[in-house]
Amino acid sequence: MCDQPLAILFLNGPNLQLLGMREPGIYGTETLAAIETRCQAVAGELGVKLECRQSNHEGTLVDWIDEMPGRFSGAVINPGAYTHTSVALRDAVAAVRLPVVEVHISNIFQREDYRHHSYLSEVAWAVVAGMGGDGYEWALRALVRKLRQE
Amino acid sequence: MCDQPLAILFLNGPNLQLLGMREPGIYGTETLAAIETRCQAVAGELGVKLECRQSNHEGTLVDWIDEMPGRFSGAVINPGAYTHTSVALRDAVAAVRLPVVEVHISNIFQREDYRHHSYLSEVAWAVVAGMGGDGYEWALRALVRKLRQE
Amino acid sequence: MCDQPLAILFLNGPNLQLLGMREPGIYGTETLAAIETRCQAVAGELGVKLECRQSNHEGTLVDWIDEMPGRFSGAVINPGAYTHTSVALRDAVAAVRLPVVEVHISNIFQREDYRHHSYLSEVAWAVVAGMGGDGYEWALRALVRKLRQE
Amino acid sequence: MCDQPLAILFLNGPNLQLLGMREPGIYGTETLAAIETRCQAVAGELGVKLECRQSNHEGTLVDWIDEMPGRFSGAVINPGAYTHTSVALRDAVAAVRLPVVEVHISNIFQREDYRHHSYLSEVAWAVVAGMGGDGYEWALRALVRKLRQE
Amino acid sequence: MCDQPLAILFLNGPNLQLLGMREPGIYGTETLAAIETRCQAVAGELGVKLECRQSNHEGTLVDWIDEMPGRFSGAVINPGAYTHTSVALRDAVAAVRLPVVEVHISNIFQREDYRHHSYLSEVAWAVVAGMGGDGYEWALRALVRKLRQE
Amino acid sequence: MCDQPLAILFLNGPNLQLLGMREPGIYGTETLAAIETRCQAVAGELGVKLECRQSNHEGTLVDWIDEMPGRFSGAVINPGAYTHTSVALRDAVAAVRLPVVEVHISNIFQREDYRHHSYLSEVAWAVVAGMGGDGYEWALRALVRKLRQE
Amino acid sequence: MCDQPLAILFLNGPNLQLLGMREPGIYGTETLAAIETRCQAVAGELGVKLECRQSNHEGTLVDWIDEMPGRFSGAVINPGAYTHTSVALRDAVAAVRLPVVEVHISNIFQREDYRHHSYLSEVAWAVVAGMGGDGYEWALRALVRKLRQE
Amino acid sequence: MCDQPLAILFLNGPNLQLLGMREPGIYGTETLAAIETRCQAVAGELGVKLECRQSNHEGTLVDWIDEMPGRFSGAVINPGAYTHTSVALRDAVAAVRLPVVEVHISNIFQREDYRHHSYLSEVAWAVVAGMGGDGYEWALRALVRKLRQE
Amino acid sequence: MCDQPLAILFLNGPNLQLLGMREPGIYGTETLAAIETRCQAVAGELGVKLECRQSNHEGTLVDWIDEMPGRFSGAVINPGAYTHTSVALRDAVAAVRLPVVEVHISNIFQREDYRHHSYLSEVAWAVVAGMGGDGYEWALRALVRKLRQE
Amino acid sequence: MCDQPLAILFLNGPNLQLLGMREPGIYGTETLAAIETRCQAVAGELGVKLECRQSNHEGTLVDWIDEMPGRFSGAVINPGAYTHTSVALRDAVAAVRLPVVEVHISNIFQREDYRHHSYLSEVAWAVVAGMGGDGYEWALRALVRKLRQE
Amino acid sequence: MCDQPLAILFLNGPNLQLLGMREPGIYGTETLAAIETRCQAVAGELGVKLECRQSNHEGTLVDWIDEMPGRFSGAVINPGAYTHTSVALRDAVAAVRLPVVEVHISNIFQREDYRHHSYLSEVAWAVVAGMGGDGYEWALRALVRKLRQE
Amino acid sequence: MCDQPLAILFLNGPNLQLLGMREPGIYGTETLAAIETRCQAVAGELGVKLECRQSNHEGTLVDWIDEMPGRFSGAVINPGAYTHTSVALRDAVAAVRLPVVEVHISNIFQREDYRHHSYLSEVAWAVVAGMGGDGYEWALRALVRKLRQE
Repeated sequence: MCDQPLAILFLNGPNLQLLGMREPGIYGTETLAAIETRCQAVAGELGVKLECRQSNHEGTLVDWIDEMPGRFSGAVINPGAYTHTSVALRDAVAAVRLPVVEVHISNIFQREDYRHHSYLSEVAWAVVAGMGGDGYEWALRALVRKLRQE
Repeated sequence: MCDQPLAILFLNGPNLQLLGMREPGIYGTETLAAIETRCQAVAGELGVKLECRQSNHEGTLVDWIDEMPGRFSGAVINPGAYTHTSVALRDAVAAVRLPVVEVHISNIFQREDYRHHSYLSEVAWAVVAGMGGDGYEWALRALVRKLRQE
Repeated sequence: MCDQPLAILFLNGPNLQLLGMREPGIYGTETLAAIETRCQAVAGELGVKLECRQSNHEGTLVDWIDEMPGRFSGAVINPGAYTHTSVALRDAVAAVRLPVVEVHISNIFQREDYRHHSYLSEVAWAVVAGMGGDGYEWALRALVRKLRQE
Repeated sequence: MCDQPLAILFLNGPNLQLLGMREPGIYGTETLAAIETRCQAVAGELGVKLECRQSNHEGTLVDWIDEMPGRFSGAVINPGAYTHTSVALRDAVAAVRLPVVEVHISNIFQREDYRHHSYLSEVAWAVVAGMGGDGYEWALRALVRKLRQE
Repeated sequence: MCDQPLAILFLNGPNLQLLGMREPGIYGTETLAAIETRCQAVAGELGVKLECRQSNHEGTLVDWIDEMPGRFSGAVINPGAYTHTSVALRDAVAAVRLPVVEVHISNIFQREDYRHHSYLSEVAWAVVAGMGGDGYEWALRALVRKLRQE
Repeated sequence: MCDQPLAILFLNGPNLQLLGMREPGIYGTETLAAIETRCQAVAGELGVKLECRQSNHEGTLVDWIDEMPGRFSGAVINPGAYTHTSVALRDAVAAVRLPVVEVHISNIFQREDYRHHSYLSEVAWAVVAGMGGDGYEWALRALVRKLRQE
Repeated sequence: MCDQPLAILFLNGPNLQLLGMREPGIYGTETLAAIETRCQAVAGELGVKLECRQSNHEGTLVDWIDEMPGRFSGAVINPGAYTHTSVALRDAVAAVRLPVVEVHISNIFQREDYRHHSYLSEVAWAVVAGMGGDGYEWALRALVRKLRQE
Repeated sequence: MCDQPLAILFLNGPNLQLLGMREPGIYGTETLAAIETRCQAVAGELGVKLECRQSNHEGTLVDWIDEMPGRFSGAVINPGAYTHTSVALRDAVAAVRLPVVEVHISNIFQREDYRHHSYLSEVAWAVVAGMGGDGYEWALRALVRKLRQE
Repeated sequence: MCDQPLAILFLNGPNLQLLGMREPGIYGTETLAAIETRCQAVAGELGVKLECRQSNHEGTLVDWIDEMPGRFSGAVINPGAYTHTSVALRDAVAAVRLPVVEVHISNIFQREDYRHHSYLSEVAWAVVAGMGGDGYEWALRALVRKLRQE
Repeated sequence: MCDQPLAILFLNGPNLQLLGMREPGIYGTETLAAIETRCQAVAGELGVKLECRQSNHEGTLVDWIDEMPGRFSGAVINPGAYTHTSVALRDAVAAVRLPVVEVHISNIFQREDYRHHSYLSEVAWAVVAGMGGDGYEWALRALVRKLRQE
Repeated sequence: MCDQPLAILFLNGPNLQLLGMREPGIYGTETLAAIETRCQAVAGELGVKLECRQSNHEGTLVDWIDEMPGRFSGAVINPGAYTHTSVALRDAVAAVRLPVVEVHISNIFQREDYRHHSYLSEVAWAVVAGMGGDGYEWALRALVRKLRQE
Repeated sequence: MCDQPLAILFLNGPNLQLLGMREPGIYGTETLAAIETRCQAVAGELGVKLECRQSNHEGTLVDWIDEMPGRFSGAVINPGAYTHTSVALRDAVAAVRLPVVEVHISNIFQREDYRHHSYLSEVAWAVVAGMGGDGYEWALRALVRKLRQE
């Protein structure tokens, strides 16, 4: 993987394709497409390849994570509602043993009690919450630096 | 949307396609097809369009709800087992901000403890439980009246 | 009871006589008298006799339920605050073994945690919540259909 | 109180006037009147005065207990559903400081979880459960012996 | 209500008519009558009308609170045991939207765990506990000052 | 078993051989021998055979219960501390399917929280608590009457 | 201490020096200085000496309470956030055995769950909550009356 | 179904296609393909037909179970992470009323608390855990014997 | 231990000597003797020595496990009720560090909540539940294979 | 007991006879015999008589404690696993009212949650944990000093 | 504040002055001084003023936050152990209403349960955890961007 | 550190300077000064240097522990109320990696529930509770022996 740029998976879970339209008081008005465009620009600046995907299907998210080895060096993941209910996603990340930054647009610790617990956090390298769409960018920058330091 | 009839999404979750065969002591002997036919007749009487769908896939149910805006004015949803485990469905309904009546064939409050909690109820307009297949019809009638009163 | 019309008890618990004045953001502006009048009209349409009563006294509500056999074939009950605290009401309904529809004007599942549990639901035939004053009407219609199907 | 016979209050709570008709699988087929007659005979044999009362009203039960001093030397109480929900009854017994035997017809420890806790037991002298209608008689005999031993 | 004196409801719940006799180690030796006389004197000094009532019946207490609007401007309430078990009382106070001071003679936070929670506190303006019979007087003075400041 | 007298097993668990010496403020001053003598007299009066045993060993108590069928028609059991910790005793009583009255000298519901739960109560026919040494006698009388009524 | 005026410690905990600026929707607009001035006036009227102190440091608050004996006869304490987390403050008050009135400006029972529990209440003589800045005055008056009655 | 060989569904849930690569300290180094080959050999020896499937999708697993009647006589299921979160899988097995052996490669009772609970166990005929890849074989042999004994 | 056959301890806990007579709806009609005979035959087929023991005494079971080293290479254990209450058994197995298969005749996960937890499972190599008497045989076969693979 | 040396019971519970062999990472490599020899030497130095016993049987441990009065003045007890499960041992110590030092070789507060609670601690005079085999010696020295100070 | 550079408070709580020496497996080997130097460089690059402080004293941390208004526009805070125990810190941040990024060097969600809850998160703008010393830098960059966007 | 005597830090937390005056029924009548003098004598006998400090300030206690490396080889700590609330103290001890004996004068396991948990115990080498002032001496002796054995 020597001469190739780092490849990063950029994964969003259920309902996040509605960003900008969905509860803007909580999630802001920026669309997912705008965030992805912004992060692609950052990826370009950093010299890494960014693959952006979104799915409402827990199984599809697990499929994509399970297929990471050999294709991606790490991932920025906002699992949306599956953060709080999916042991399968957590096990997928544990299985592939690649660094993941977990991102939440809102500060999940200020919301319903069941949003305070994340199965993913048990296996993620790091967690960023509350920074709105900017959180993805900081997560990406932090992940790339970490991957290059190793 | 002025001259068009109201369109209502009629959504059933996992294992509900087995109605009539599945634990008839709890769920009765009426099939889902029979219930849908009955509700289509009520829809006709009320002058609304009813779209009936069923899936065992949480992600598919979320997809359908996320696509409601512009296509449907409200929904009658029996999320089956996902009632108790799916934050993603709850977030989908919260995101689209359309009125939903949550229906349960059995009286879920008389069953296992984990069936007493519904994530959907946090965002549904109303809840109907225990009326068997008839519950769908009353939910539909109530939803249409509410939509016409607004 | 062959040639006589079905008789239905229509029971409201504590503070519900204040409907229309009490926390209208939660309970709406329709008075209990207006709801009772509306349901009497539905009862007339359905050919059943409806007896409307309200009390703030748990014991009085228990008395009325205990006296149902031989006088009423079923009941529509909104136990108000006693929903969450009265085992006595629950035991009364269990004792008389007549079908009861439990009605809540607001969606109790969106309120304080202690309003999520209903002792009555353990023995009620069905539950309707969140439909405002209309919930009583749908409960009445559903109960009458059920009683005539048996 | 020297030459007068001991007076015992015999108190039954909500729905117990339905004994014999109410869930006979749990509560047996003997009526409350039959039990009271039987206990009056035992009282006669023991030379004590027995006053039998029943109410569905928590407040009335509290009234009767609060008025015990000077009229009764002790009580046999089956608080029915108020066993599990009434701090007021418990406080009444604590206030009058007279010995009370708490009786339950069924073995409450084999029923719903919320029937395993009794507020009254915190202040009752003794508890008898599961002996059906006979429990009242044994409670009465035990209470009279205790009162005569003091 | 301009020229009329403020009217205050002074309400005591179950077993409080036994004050002075009931567990004096906890509740002191002053009778309820003595406390009421003392508070009537304070009311006279303050130029307000005080109506003193006591009941062992939850429903009666709810009745009196529900009837407050137009008759009373606020209330001093010691709900006794119903503090911990009555959602109906809490809902009554919420319904009438008048300021209430909740009084407890003993420091309820030093007693059984179930006395640490008060449903009334959720809707009361203020809470006073542990000051014995004096607590009623301070509650009355505080309530009157508040009503005159508004 | 027709002409033979009923045989009753009278079983006491750990530390109960110390009765009279052990924490007399809780357990009274009567010794276990005195209680057994008293109950033997009652047994004589009732025409039944009483076998009195005590052990500190959970396994021995289980052995004795397991051997009941064919030897005893029922038992009066005070399992002492094993009340709260022994599923094995509970299973033994469930296995032999003979009626058992559970006796506690003290009112266990007024003591530490962990003494409020009894595994035995789940399978015992009846429970008597708080009557001191007399409780054994009433339990014996109640059990014999029940056995003769069947 | 015969001819000297009573001395009262008036203690405020963390962030209370910000009163008037801090979340005025919860805590009102009156500054701590204004409250202290008002209470000094009341102290003058009552003929007692009032020493007003505030600290954000749990240890400093404990120091001051530990030094009370011989200097102060009682205290009015609003421990702010330490109400809910400080066993050390509670132990200090228990150690010096002087009467304390615990004051809360807001009605803490209407706020986050962790604000419903107060370690101080376990040892305080009395508790006043929800009366805003006036609560300090009523606490002071009540404490002085109590100290003079002893 | 007389002359046809028994057909058994062999179902694996999320991330189990990674066996051999995934956390070998917990799950061992044998691949799922190797296990399936081994079990096909056992099936041949036993004279039954074995259909092996794996999916990361909860809905797909539910689909396959719902379609079992008429095609399979029983199933060996390792639901992976869905063991602990999927009521839908549990309801599917309950609906089809066919015997299922639940298999776990690791001893789930020695892992995180949330892995100690299995929704599937509520409806499975039997459970095997901790035997590594061998567990599937023993489950298969046990299931076939049971089916042939019925 | 080279030329000697493997020796396996076959241990059954309290009340299991009653198998066949005890709650046959739960435990089946096969006696423990029959199961032991069957397993001895399997042991013969596998060329291992099987030592069958049963005790109602927790201490005896601990004694036998503590004495395993040098005598047995592993054990098949059904601890009966001690499964759920005995830390001593768990510690014994941890102390001897020999592989144990935990067997339950019934599917303990479908019974009372307190039967869902097993202290033994924390240290057992594997768990088999729900297969009736056959479970012992499969456990034995699995254990022997494991011991021979090491 | 004047001229006789103090007699101390030195009691070890289940699996402690395996010390030195059992989980040496937790319990160290010193055998129980070595510890007893060391403590006998200390006893000699202190001029007290030490009786060392060990049993895996809860009932035997209870027997020994129940027989202490008149034979021993106090005890050093390591109840092993029964620390966490035996109310019977706790009741035995409470019954004999003699001072007991509870010893744990490991620091039980750093292990599984269920090892954090000790029934014995409720009635023991003192607790020593984490000092390995030395803990017995310090416990013995502390107990003897206490007994001689009384 | 127009022409002046933004001023940011950089606050570290208890034991963080030991970074580099303290549990390096969890916290890494970089010292707090090195982190502060690195962040000062970033501050220079961003044109903001950074004030770095550390204290082991909860009260001192509260003092510093309470004094922020007029001096600082926001803060990067790692409250160390006070994250999990200090309501006072949380209230301080709520009182000053300035944006705070909460930083944790380790991924607190992978550690002891009591480290999963942060009082500060209830009022912080954003949370960063698990990125080691880099987390401070990303928090600083994110905070400055946010302050400049407002 | 070869030729220098061992230095031990002797640390007492909040309110412990009041020993002898504070709740003597719980804490005895010996003052902290007397205990320190006694332990200095023991230190002299053992040839170690003892530095005695007390503070009511959590931060000061943390400061002192953080400064231990290079100055002290171990500590005897009674954290008083901070035992139950201070994660910061626990983290300090974990950070300096020096052996600590935790001492409690009273048997904390016989007091309020919140005194049963100690954060310090998670990282302390050993725990001594219930021995009054003597506990410090035994802790010191045990710590010195351990330090010399290493």
